[in-house]
Amino acid sequence: MLRFGILGAGRIGTVHARTIAASGRASVAFVADAVPEAAQRLAASVGAKVASVNDIITSREVDAVLIGTPTDTHADLIEAAARAKKAILCEKPVSLSVERIEAAMPVVQQAGVPLLIGFNRRYDPNFRALESRLRAGEIGNVELLTIISRDPAPPPVSYIERSGGIYRDMMIHDFDMARFLLGGEEITTVHALGSVLVDPAIGPTGDVDTAVVHMKTASGKLVVITNSRRAAYGYDQRIEVHGSTGMLRAGNIHMTTLEKADGNGFTADVIQNFFIDRYAAAYAAEINAFIDAVEKGIPPRANLYDGLMAQKLAEAATQSSQTGQPVAVA
Amino acid sequence: MLRFGILGAGRIGTVHARTIAASGRASVAFVADAVPEAAQRLAASVGAKVASVNDIITSREVDAVLIGTPTDTHADLIEAAARAKKAILCEKPVSLSVERIEAAMPVVQQAGVPLLIGFNRRYDPNFRALESRLRAGEIGNVELLTIISRDPAPPPVSYIERSGGIYRDMMIHDFDMARFLLGGEEITTVHALGSVLVDPAIGPTGDVDTAVVHMKTASGKLVVITNSRRAAYGYDQRIEVHGSTGMLRAGNIHMTTLEKADGNGFTADVIQNFFIDRYAAAYAAEINAFIDAVEKGIPPRANLYDGLMAQKLAEAATQSSQTGQPVAVA
Amino acid sequence: MLRFGILGAGRIGTVHARTIAASGRASVAFVADAVPEAAQRLAASVGAKVASVNDIITSREVDAVLIGTPTDTHADLIEAAARAKKAILCEKPVSLSVERIEAAMPVVQQAGVPLLIGFNRRYDPNFRALESRLRAGEIGNVELLTIISRDPAPPPVSYIERSGGIYRDMMIHDFDMARFLLGGEEITTVHALGSVLVDPAIGPTGDVDTAVVHMKTASGKLVVITNSRRAAYGYDQRIEVHGSTGMLRAGNIHMTTLEKADGNGFTADVIQNFFIDRYAAAYAAEINAFIDAVEKGIPPRANLYDGLMAQKLAEAATQSSQTGQPVAVA
Amino acid sequence: MLRFGILGAGRIGTVHARTIAASGRASVAFVADAVPEAAQRLAASVGAKVASVNDIITSREVDAVLIGTPTDTHADLIEAAARAKKAILCEKPVSLSVERIEAAMPVVQQAGVPLLIGFNRRYDPNFRALESRLRAGEIGNVELLTIISRDPAPPPVSYIERSGGIYRDMMIHDFDMARFLLGGEEITTVHALGSVLVDPAIGPTGDVDTAVVHMKTASGKLVVITNSRRAAYGYDQRIEVHGSTGMLRAGNIHMTTLEKADGNGFTADVIQNFFIDRYAAAYAAEINAFIDAVEKGIPPRANLYDGLMAQKLAEAATQSSQTGQPVAVA
Repeated sequence: MLRFGILGAGRIGTVHARTIAASGRASVAFVADAVPEAAQRLAASVGAKVASVNDIITSREVDAVLIGTPTDTHADLIEAAARAKKAILCEKPVSLSVERIEAAMPVVQQAGVPLLIGFNRRYDPNFRALESRLRAGEIGNVELLTIISRDPAPPPVSYIERSGGIYRDMMIHDFDMARFLLGGEEITTVHALGSVLVDPAIGPTGDVDTAVVHMKTASGKLVVITNSRRAAYGYDQRIEVHGSTGMLRAGNIHMTTLEKADGNGFTADVIQNFFIDRYAAAYAAEINAFIDAVEKGIPPRANLYDGLMAQKLAEAATQSSQTGQPVAVA
Repeated sequence: MLRFGILGAGRIGTVHARTIAASGRASVAFVADAVPEAAQRLAASVGAKVASVNDIITSREVDAVLIGTPTDTHADLIEAAARAKKAILCEKPVSLSVERIEAAMPVVQQAGVPLLIGFNRRYDPNFRALESRLRAGEIGNVELLTIISRDPAPPPVSYIERSGGIYRDMMIHDFDMARFLLGGEEITTVHALGSVLVDPAIGPTGDVDTAVVHMKTASGKLVVITNSRRAAYGYDQRIEVHGSTGMLRAGNIHMTTLEKADGNGFTADVIQNFFIDRYAAAYAAEINAFIDAVEKGIPPRANLYDGLMAQKLAEAATQSSQTGQPVAVA
Repeated sequence: MLRFGILGAGRIGTVHARTIAASGRASVAFVADAVPEAAQRLAASVGAKVASVNDIITSREVDAVLIGTPTDTHADLIEAAARAKKAILCEKPVSLSVERIEAAMPVVQQAGVPLLIGFNRRYDPNFRALESRLRAGEIGNVELLTIISRDPAPPPVSYIERSGGIYRDMMIHDFDMARFLLGGEEITTVHALGSVLVDPAIGPTGDVDTAVVHMKTASGKLVVITNSRRAAYGYDQRIEVHGSTGMLRAGNIHMTTLEKADGNGFTADVIQNFFIDRYAAAYAAEINAFIDAVEKGIPPRANLYDGLMAQKLAEAATQSSQTGQPVAVA
Repeated sequence: MLRFGILGAGRIGTVHARTIAASGRASVAFVADAVPEAAQRLAASVGAKVASVNDIITSREVDAVLIGTPTDTHADLIEAAARAKKAILCEKPVSLSVERIEAAMPVVQQAGVPLLIGFNRRYDPNFRALESRLRAGEIGNVELLTIISRDPAPPPVSYIERSGGIYRDMMIHDFDMARFLLGGEEITTVHALGSVLVDPAIGPTGDVDTAVVHMKTASGKLVVITNSRRAAYGYDQRIEVHGSTGMLRAGNIHMTTLEKADGNGFTADVIQNFFIDRYAAAYAAEINAFIDAVEKGIPPRANLYDGLMAQKLAEAATQSSQTGQPVAVA
């Protein structure tokens, strides 16, 4: 039983802690949070104790840390945990600064600890199956990859203000998914185009709420990503990949299989509307994969390099969106 | 150019006359109808002349007759046309009396004229493809066949009264479709169960408006047919066939490919709601097949024997529905 | 925390025990099985002890029993558990004998203990939503109800021989579902038609492997059920309900949302193929509902009367299938 | 009966001539083509005579000309026909030169003749319904518009060489569709990214075979178009529009409604694979709309200004694709 210390008892820390407690393969030993009541509440619900971040990282009763604190603390905590020889599961993004991620990389490498970056969608059963069928050559060579991500509704402007912007905060998942599906070939050019169409209060923050990005790899493969902070019909998460011999796509998950037919047409149920429901299976698989990484040495699907590269694409897209010019990625 | 005489200028006669005129392979020479204005109107629209039924049948300027008159005249007209050596396309049902059909058979056989019974659904592109894929063995041996037919709304009770009842008037198409898909193996037992659920005025006529029939062939294949005089969502026409290695089904045709997604779910467009629209392609293919039968000797998909056998199943179902007992079919 | 005693450590007992252990609201205290190793194995996996059936039923450390033993022991165990004032969750069917169920009813009633019969499909999220939307009047008055259940592959003939036949063993779920969806109106007539089409070895046992049943209620509502022991494409579980103002249906659950398009067409993924996967959510909801019945007095969705009525329909169908005659249900 | 002169008896001229002949509202009087046999063959099949382009344009027996000649002749023929006071249905593109279209505009305006540019997709029943539901406000304000167009297979390189490139030859339809769906708000910025992934022989011509374009309007609405010269699964024609209160999309049309289920999954039929089949209804509606324009003065859906604006977008995309820089549209 792998013993976890949870750093950060917010929404995502809670998801992970519960998933760990239900895994049957690991336990939550400690929980830390800047808000003592939050730490206490989460600890109680999973049979853990409250401790400080530093005590957790150095505790001999902790094998692994789950970093779910605010983004600007991630890199420091990764380095501290690596030095303490803890296995690390860190939420995305690693840092809003590419340089900061690059600085953390040798520290982790030297420590030799397992590290998984929380790009949970790589563990979604639908997207995993898509990726493995691509790799198996079911549609030949990949030519064009389209990713659609739309949130049901925009977050408060106070969140937007410190989010780093839509490309770093939301599209980061899609940049990582594109890289995951491209299977090793890196993206070289990024064009982004954004608008404020959903909430006019977002404009003054310098961010956008609707964005399209297209990108190209060295061999000419094309990637199109569209994001919106609004989707009246639910949390829209789709991927479509065109290859030389066919197309593979993954669709949304409806709440039920019900369909109603009447004079208005044929109405299928709404789709899953909340990321924690939509990706529940992905979070469970991610925890399992992390435990496998620690116990069996199986490399996790998303490492610090992946965190770095997704961040580079997010940087490029942000710059492109602001300048209106395409940006080359090294 | 095959020259047609149209007997009956009602709804179905009009459909056929227009289809013939648009075929590019045949023309409408004459139209007859008990209502002179109806004959005149249809004749004018397709460039034909009005004549009496007898004159059409014996005219040397007519190669083929289309019998679209009331059902109780069909058998007599078939015999007369056969004796006059005209090719015959007769609307279903041939007759409400099995005996009358049996009497007509030797007359037609002796005359040696081509004859097609208007089971138009055998010519529907979807159902034809289904049948041909069944024959090709795509799902192995047929085990269970389900046919769903639902009309958008019930006809007036005055129509019901002289219709022969739902099994002879509406399900006759499904009995024929079952035989078509079974590919030669005949049905031996029929159980029917009917209710008046749509229009209470139908009950006093002795008919029902909602009916289910199950049937068995000699080798044990099972057939389920459901009919209703009502479907709020449109003209429902579906077939599902289960075989030893899989399932094949044909669904409804939506008016457009549009789909709307919003807080109520994902709504596809309504389906085609009128039999003349739904089976427009079938009517055109039927006319082509009839011309092929006359010009090239290609046997039509539905002959007088098929008309007889469908009628026998309709008789058996009517009897079963009235007695509550299963009925064996010879 | 409700303390369960599990009677029967076979496949279904194991499903329930694991679901209880994962519920967070109940625990497994004891496990009994005729095969000591089976009891031991299951007990170990859920942190329980092994005990005899009798000891469990009378134990003061047990609040509820889960009866997952062979069918012919169910009624006796229900009575014994009722007398011992234990809450009872008994797997379907209650008994292959209608009389035996009727005899058990007063015993349970007198004891006043909560009892839930394991018609798990009533707790499936899709079917529950279907039922609740029917009740809300979304499609008006129910006219025709169609249930399709097909197993992926037939069980061994040795299982068939002691199963009571397809109507009691497999279609029992569909009889119960029909009653659930009809919402209180009972079925009065049953016609069944069965064939041996899947495995010729099933014929000599007196059973069939492909069956269709149609039924009618007092007010004329119609029900069609089709069953097969074979479905090459997976575990087929569908319901379609036609009402006066529309249609509601629940479809199958695909393994993933993946779809592939190439020269062969557009291929969606296979459907869930194993009842334990397909109904995992239903089993969890069933356990929760049972705990609610015990703790909060909320009546469970399926009680002993429901078990009795489903059995009566299964009896009637078996008789109808064997005699070829419709059978009235009291 | 409107009397047409067909200029150009190639593939598209033939489609139009046959559609006119079958319309019941117009006739083909003359056909001209540089290849006398082609003109003769088409004329014979629609009951027309062969004549020279000039004679047709000036003939008193011609009310309207259909311009289906090579693109570089379109503008000259439009001007000549306008001066001869003929109604004009001209195939897209009007010209590969924006300036040439601009020069033709006053000539047509002065002549006051009806003119329809053959953007046939505006008349497709699915896309028309989509547009009219957008206009009716079904999904609120348009935010993001995605158009996917993929041809089944690339044309010969000899065609590519004189096509003007993928943006002018193929994506021109999508530029026009975007404008049609935006309902009057013009596009101000175009970014294009193209690759040679389908046929390496296309690269040396300076063209690409796979392309993505994103565009923005003055108010910030976003448009994404993807094109490919290859789609193994058929002629892919899809539109998806996101608005403030929902999403509307139009999908592909399958050859039949058949679906097969077996161990490989659930396979729907292939989609319509040839533009003449896919847009048969659109071509018929286009001819009807043109006749309505002439006879009733109803403005056609696509005029010379639409031809000009689509061409401007194609120019901008071509330039953007070649330079890698976004291009502003006046």
